[in-house]
Amino acid sequence: MIADKMVSLVKNSSAIRAMFEEGKILAAKYGAENVYDFSLGNPNVPAPVQVKEAIIEELNKEDPVVLHGYMNNSGYEDVRDAIAQSINKKFDTAFTEKNIIMTVGAAGGLNVILKTLLNPGDEVIAIAPYFGEYNSYVSNYDGKIVVVSPNTVDFQPNLEEMEQKITAKTKAVIINSPNNPTGVVYSEATIMKMADMLRAKQKEFGTDIYLISDEPYRELAYDGVEVPYLTKYYENAIIGYSFSKSLSLPGERIGYLVISNEVADFEDVLAAANVATRILGYVNAPSLMQKAVAKCLDAQADVPYYDRNRETLYSGLKEMGFECIKPEGAFYLFMKSPIADEKEFCQAAKKHNILIVPGSSFACPGYVRIAYCVSYETIVNSMPGFKALAEEFLG
Amino acid sequence: MIADKMVSLVKNSSAIRAMFEEGKILAAKYGAENVYDFSLGNPNVPAPVQVKEAIIEELNKEDPVVLHGYMNNSGYEDVRDAIAQSINKKFDTAFTEKNIIMTVGAAGGLNVILKTLLNPGDEVIAIAPYFGEYNSYVSNYDGKIVVVSPNTVDFQPNLEEMEQKITAKTKAVIINSPNNPTGVVYSEATIMKMADMLRAKQKEFGTDIYLISDEPYRELAYDGVEVPYLTKYYENAIIGYSFSKSLSLPGERIGYLVISNEVADFEDVLAAANVATRILGYVNAPSLMQKAVAKCLDAQADVPYYDRNRETLYSGLKEMGFECIKPEGAFYLFMKSPIADEKEFCQAAKKHNILIVPGSSFACPGYVRIAYCVSYETIVNSMPGFKALAEEFLG
Repeated sequence: MIADKMVSLVKNSSAIRAMFEEGKILAAKYGAENVYDFSLGNPNVPAPVQVKEAIIEELNKEDPVVLHGYMNNSGYEDVRDAIAQSINKKFDTAFTEKNIIMTVGAAGGLNVILKTLLNPGDEVIAIAPYFGEYNSYVSNYDGKIVVVSPNTVDFQPNLEEMEQKITAKTKAVIINSPNNPTGVVYSEATIMKMADMLRAKQKEFGTDIYLISDEPYRELAYDGVEVPYLTKYYENAIIGYSFSKSLSLPGERIGYLVISNEVADFEDVLAAANVATRILGYVNAPSLMQKAVAKCLDAQADVPYYDRNRETLYSGLKEMGFECIKPEGAFYLFMKSPIADEKEFCQAAKKHNILIVPGSSFACPGYVRIAYCVSYETIVNSMPGFKALAEEFLG
Repeated sequence: MIADKMVSLVKNSSAIRAMFEEGKILAAKYGAENVYDFSLGNPNVPAPVQVKEAIIEELNKEDPVVLHGYMNNSGYEDVRDAIAQSINKKFDTAFTEKNIIMTVGAAGGLNVILKTLLNPGDEVIAIAPYFGEYNSYVSNYDGKIVVVSPNTVDFQPNLEEMEQKITAKTKAVIINSPNNPTGVVYSEATIMKMADMLRAKQKEFGTDIYLISDEPYRELAYDGVEVPYLTKYYENAIIGYSFSKSLSLPGERIGYLVISNEVADFEDVLAAANVATRILGYVNAPSLMQKAVAKCLDAQADVPYYDRNRETLYSGLKEMGFECIKPEGAFYLFMKSPIADEKEFCQAAKKHNILIVPGSSFACPGYVRIAYCVSYETIVNSMPGFKALAEEFLG
């Protein structure tokens, strides 16, 4: 009696849930410290202390009727202004509070902008490998996801194939850099080429193609790599940001959309996104957390911690003979499965109490995702297990 | 270039936004204290002090990785358990954490359950007058809202008409008691009759009809009136609760769904609601606020404050000759417009700096909604304006 659409979603979802359950069973059997759970993108470093201080300061200072009350569905004006100024300072842009819509995390922001833009049958391009939830977000509004196949050389987007897949029905492109699951940062050269191509396609079809940039990992970039700010390269760019990873607040559901003045039908998009926020049932991003993050725009979670994990994991796996690309950002490492069926490899890893996610979940079979937002000890202690897998599969 | 569905929504929304803007202009012109804004259901009494204490206690005690982290999409097990126990104590039910799904307010909960249940074209019954946002929530999932016309005698649901409007396509009925906009509480007799009728209709059509109870105002009931707990009267009842009004936390977006074991296809509904929470982009209800409300289940906002407003407003308006039903709950008073076109009456009220909402917004023209979640002074000081309106329109 549940909705038809939900039946298959529940079935697929059960597979992932089964993995969690298995992890719990393993932990109960062998002790949590002997299970190496690399399956989840849940930050293991705590929120910076400024977050706690900001929350307490707000509780002590602000009128509770304001602090916990309704505001404009797009968020508190002072919070949005602080965010606009912070972006301007970092990226030399010229946003105002008008350009910012506070959202229930990046997932909420993506849903708001897709609800705003999509008519049934509209096409949305996703570049494999990509976060599988995009399928559901696009399907929520009866859009059709069109997948660009992975470029397994360096995991930069396959722009030639992308160009071929853009049609008159293409309403949006979703990109995610630093990328989940590869950790790759799309280079400035990539972004410039993509922007030129999209502009040409807009002209060819007489359409607007919105480039939606999903950026929960923007602040997690290593070795000084630059993450291009999309609105500087393409007029129809919309940014979806989240504080989930930068401030280790994934459960708080706090993020924002940036809709620049140059976006086609700017005023309409802005008004519709405001309404979408309300009618999707979010109503507004959580109020206290809006005020708190506005005070922590220069704070950051312990990125060096992830960096050490990254170096240790990457060099360890390379040394054992595994093939993988060095992540430049996020907290994921994408490793080539030594056998074609990566699900079988994930099963084999489980025998060593190592939990990793098949690349199929990201439209990129033959690879596995290792989320290294875990304790350093987990990385170190998992090495013998990986070593055994190397011996078993790489000979 | 925005979605077709959004165009009309933006247009309609602009009318309400225009009212807020008008209120701001009036406040700037005459001083905020001389503008009587009864348009919004935004609690004016502060959250009870326990909320602040609970938040600070959690911040001091709990590991931030847990406190701000991801949990099961349905919410923290300990929070859900505390809520289940609290409901059991109050209503003599037998829920466990399994029956509770934490949601981004009641609006989030309604969207989750409608996403869970509705196939395109499925019908959802709403009983006028009702909260206009239900139209959008049902339309989000391509459902069709079917309106039962208002019973303006006592604003209990018109069960005869409801019975006629139930078809084989009726998937759900949404009720809201204490009611927005009337303040009426649906009596136990009403609920029992409705439950019997729905059971008969289920049998007639061989279908399941879910009764969704939207209960943000449950705790705001006056004169000791009982608000029946729906799961005790009807097997296929699902409760959507919010702490927005009971704890004055509307901006925090925190509430829950209760899905009882007796609901048809219980396990499927539960699993689908969990998935819907994730894919709609909520992911989970805000984490810190989950922990906080779990400690405040016996706390309450200052209901006697609303009660004094209610008495003063009601007796004042009655004395002037206005026709209205005495609210038993919530913080709304539904008054008959002295002229058929209540929008014209709302315009006339504006001349006295009184902002009220036309009943048309609730599918009940000829009436106006007065939200009395305002300061007592606002009530008292608005009386001369209402008096002038009485003289102008009632002679």
